[in-house]
Formats: sequence, C-alpha cells, structure tokens
Amino acid sequence: MTSLMPSTLDTTRAFVEPALRAAVGRLDPWSYRVTAYHLGWCDEDGQPTVGSGGKAIRPAMALLAAQAVGGLAGSAVPGAVAVELVHNFSLLHDDLLDRDTQRRHRRTVWAVWGEATAILTGDALLALAHEILLESPNPAAGRAAWLLASATRELTRGQTADLAFETRGDVALEECLDMAAAKTGSLLATSAGIGAVLGGGSDSTVDAMLRFGREFGLAFQLVDDVLGVWGDPAVTGKPVHSDLRARKKSLPVTYAAGQPDCAPELTAWLAGTGEPDPEGLPAIAALLEEAGARAWALAEAERRMGLAEQALLEVELEPHARAELLALARYVVERDR
Amino acid sequence: MTSLMPSTLDTTRAFVEPALRAAVGRLDPWSYRVTAYHLGWCDEDGQPTVGSGGKAIRPAMALLAAQAVGGLAGSAVPGAVAVELVHNFSLLHDDLLDRDTQRRHRRTVWAVWGEATAILTGDALLALAHEILLESPNPAAGRAAWLLASATRELTRGQTADLAFETRGDVALEECLDMAAAKTGSLLATSAGIGAVLGGGSDSTVDAMLRFGREFGLAFQLVDDVLGVWGDPAVTGKPVHSDLRARKKSLPVTYAAGQPDCAPELTAWLAGTGEPDPEGLPAIAALLEEAGARAWALAEAERRMGLAEQALLEVELEPHARAELLALARYVVERDR
Repeated sequence: MTSLMPSTLDTTRAFVEPALRAAVGRLDPWSYRVTAYHLGWCDEDGQPTVGSGGKAIRPAMALLAAQAVGGLAGSAVPGAVAVELVHNFSLLHDDLLDRDTQRRHRRTVWAVWGEATAILTGDALLALAHEILLESPNPAAGRAAWLLASATRELTRGQTADLAFETRGDVALEECLDMAAAKTGSLLATSAGIGAVLGGGSDSTVDAMLRFGREFGLAFQLVDDVLGVWGDPAVTGKPVHSDLRARKKSLPVTYAAGQPDCAPELTAWLAGTGEPDPEGLPAIAALLEEAGARAWALAEAERRMGLAEQALLEVELEPHARAELLALARYVVERDR
Repeated sequence: MTSLMPSTLDTTRAFVEPALRAAVGRLDPWSYRVTAYHLGWCDEDGQPTVGSGGKAIRPAMALLAAQAVGGLAGSAVPGAVAVELVHNFSLLHDDLLDRDTQRRHRRTVWAVWGEATAILTGDALLALAHEILLESPNPAAGRAAWLLASATRELTRGQTADLAFETRGDVALEECLDMAAAKTGSLLATSAGIGAVLGGGSDSTVDAMLRFGREFGLAFQLVDDVLGVWGDPAVTGKPVHSDLRARKKSLPVTYAAGQPDCAPELTAWLAGTGEPDPEGLPAIAALLEEAGARAWALAEAERRMGLAEQALLEVELEPHARAELLALARYVVERDR
C-alpha cells in the first residue's frame, strides 16, 4: 500500500461488522460456515481467524454518503450490510465462473467445497441482503432495495459480457468500458447512492453519488485490470498474470488490441483461444506495456477519478464527509502500484 | 391430467403474461433469449414457439389471494410476476445443481448453453423480481419484497439440504419434511402471502395464506416425489425413475427407509452411493411401493391438503376467490396420477 487510510475503514468496520455478523448469523449452519470462511472470519475447518476479510470499501462509501447528505451514519448501516452481502454474492459466483482458485491469499469457496456450495451460498447472500434492507424502519428502504436490485442486474449483465468476451476476438474498447461500468461501477455507484438515499438525501445528491460511484468504479476497474496483468502476486493474492491466463478482454488488453500499430505477435496472441502457454505471458505483458496499455489505463483511471470528484463538487454536501469519500476513493485507486 | 382447471390458469396467464413479458424484456439480449427459451416462448434458435411454458400456478395463487382478501387481482400483478421470476431463478440453478438435462420435454438451459449462462441468468431473474415488485406504487410493496427475499433464502436452504441428503444414509423423515417445506413450501406460501399483502389483507389473513401455501406446498412436493419414482416420463417430461437415478432422499424414499420392516435389498440400496444401475431401478420402485411409500405419500399429501383448506376456512375471505384457490390447489395436487 502506498497510502494508508485506516481511520475511515476502521470506523466503518466497527460500525458495520456487528450488523454484518448478526445478518450472516441468520443463515443456516452450513451457509453460515461457508460465508464466515469466505469473509475471513474462520479457516476451512471453522476455526476462528483474525481479520483477513475484505476492506469493506462499499460499506464505508454507504456510511460516508449518508453523512455527506446530512444524515447519520447509522441510518445507512442496513444499506452498508446489504451492499457488502451483494458484493460477496457476486464474488462467490464469479470465482466459480472464472475458475479462480485463490482470493485474498486463500482458496476460493468453490475450490474448497465445490460448485453447489458456491452457487447456493451466493444465492442466500443475495436474498439476505434484501431481507436486511427491507427490515429497516427507514422510509427510504424500499427505494434503497430497488437500487440494489437494479445494480445486481447490471452486475450480472457485466459478468455475462466479461465471460462472452473471453472467446471473442473483436471486443471494442467502448463495449469493454460498458462491461466494466456494469460489472464494477454499478455496485460501487449503488454503495454511495444507497447511503445517500437512506441518509435522506435529495434526488440531486443521490444522482451525484451514483455518478461519483460509477466513475470511481471505472477507475477502480482500470487499476484492477493493470494489477491483473502486471500486479505482484504477493500483493494481489492472485496468480501472476492472472487475467492473461484467463484471456480476459480487460480494459488495457482491449485498448492495445485497438491500436493501429499493435505488434503482430500481440495481435496473434489476442486472437488466440484456449489455455495460453504460461511461459509466454511475461512477453505478452511486456508487449502490452510497449503498446501503451498500462500508461493508458492509469491515465484513464486518473481521468475517471477527476470526473468522480467533480460529481461530488457539483452538489451541496457536508464538507468533511465529502472529503473523506474522496480520500477513500483515492486510497482505493492508488493501492498497490 | 385427471382434472381440468383451465379458466383460473388461463385468466391468470392473460393477466400476468403481458407484465411478465414486459419484465423479461428488460433483460440484456442474451439473458432475454435464454429466459424466453426457458419459459417456452422460443426454441433454442430463438424462433417463437407456442405455449409450452409453465402452468403459472404461483401467479394464479397470488392473484386469487389478493381477491380473497377483498383486493383487486390487478394489485397483485407485480407480486405474481415476481414469484414467477423467483420460481424460474430457482429452476435454472436447481437444474444445473441436480444435473437435470430435461424439463418440460425440452433440454434444460445449462444443458444447452452451459453453467455460466444458467447461473447468471438465474441471478438476473432474482434481481429482476425485486426490481419489478419495488417499482410498484402499492404501499405494501416493501413488505411483499421482504416476504419474497425471505422465501428465497428458505428455498436455497432447502436445496442445500436436498443436495446434502444425496450423500447421507441417515436422513430422518422429519428432516426431509423440513427440507421440502423450505424447498417447495416457502415459495408457494409466499405466492399466496404476497397476493394477500398486496391486496391489502390483514395480518391474520396473510398468516392464513402463508399457512395454506406451506401445507399445499408439502402436498405438492409429496405428489411430485411420487411422480419422481413412479411417474410416466411421457407425462412428467423427465426420465423414468429420475429421483432414484439421482439417489434423491425424497419423502417416499425417506419414509420407506425409516420403516422397521424395510426389506434388506432396499436398505442396502438406500445406503449405497454413486450412480445406480438403471436396470435395477424398476425393482427398487417396486420395493418402495411394497414398503408402503407410495400409499403413505399420497395419504400424507391428502392430509396436508386438508390442513391447507382448514387454514383458509379459519379466516374471513371472499368466498368465490377462496373456492377458486382451493380448487386450484386441488387441481395441482391431483395432476397426473
């Protein structure tokens, strides 16, 4: 990590984790155990472990957004729990679909317990998210749940496109940006938007939060894609060149493929199908870098961050919470590079 | 079919299908096409087909329940669409998990397009159900959506148990009934309950509808389990002895296993694992029948139908709609035997 932002994320965890644990505690014993493992609360044998869970970025965004529109952080807790549950629903299904065997330096749920467990536990978390949100006495809970459902559908649309792209040689950068906005932007947008809705924000502040989250989400995905090609496995917790192994049409790859002077070796590799030779991947990563893919992705991430910041500066918000939201977004996008 | 009940189901279809088609029409083109195939609206190549879709029992229950509590059928249309979408979400995932290759005399979605398509299309339908319901201006929409989420979680709990039972030799009848109540009863209960909620019913009528649906659901599952062992493939649309092939610990099988005088050949077969020899299955079906499993399941279904009817007779309801609900339940349970 090149920057540290412990206080907001620690505060969020202290606020949200008891509610998240209470929610997950409602699951049947088997789904509970699988979810507790997935969230880093216990090991494969059910023995408690210490804090290797996710960073809780989405819950933090929900709480800060509620405060930014003048609400109490507490008003957004059911939304924070719900977005975290939907995020983990999607991780359980996506790890299976992508055949990823490692996440956060541990084996993924389908790799440990098989596909039925990953599918059904994911389904249970999605349903639980709606239960939790709709039990809230907050009068905006229904609108918040609608936002969540709509983001979930976008998320599945993005994942469907992502998988379809793996076997297509002609993916345009615009399609790829649309896929990333759906796959990653929609739930981050909803994390901020749901906080604003539950915090009692006006339509214009809710819209601003959604735009902020969507642009931030694209910046996040661009950086994630850079890490998927050039990231250090010790830091990412995934195998080296993981996205190249899966022939992901990620944003930097799609950018390079669309360059008129794309190197013939790279064009040939990009048009290939099937399991790639792992020994050839460092050369492919180098060709992508020479094609300007890494520089473009990082510059585009920066541009998207600027648009995200602009969205929040266009509406009236509580200044301290706005500053924290922007700092959180920056922290996430600047990680690990 | 030994009885015909076209009018209620036809009326429902006329009422709900346009709303269902509009909802499904929101999906991205790929998920739309897969869903349209699954619902029997088109063939594998996307060519329109005529009406081999489901019987729309759940939507019919929602509309009738709304009328039974004195509301308009129209008030329950978003609920009817939502329960049908959740039902089909669960079919898409369950067919994959059970490795069933046939449904309604056609290949299942995962068998045609693979597991990613079945998982993601299912996910999209679950999210879409909540979107549709929460867009309704009905003031009870939030409560209805909560019921739906809670039923979905029960459904996944039931399916998790069902799969776990396949590799267990010691499943008690009580566990099996709990599994069936979760897997089948919960969504049928919610179909009636959601109609009552959206129709403006009192808490006591909603409770009565939920109890009605749960008991009816158990009766339905008992009959379905009888068909899974002894059903005619030409009628069920599934392979002969389909539940025995999968070593399902269905209700009649679990009943027979728990009988003190269970034939040794049957006990040995029930304790076995792995793919069973198809040639031995007719003998197993005969032994189950000799053990009284079929007679018990049909009698228990009848008893559950009695409890379902009683639940509706204990509260004040519009008599015509109540009679139609009871007739619908009877029609469904008496099908095909």
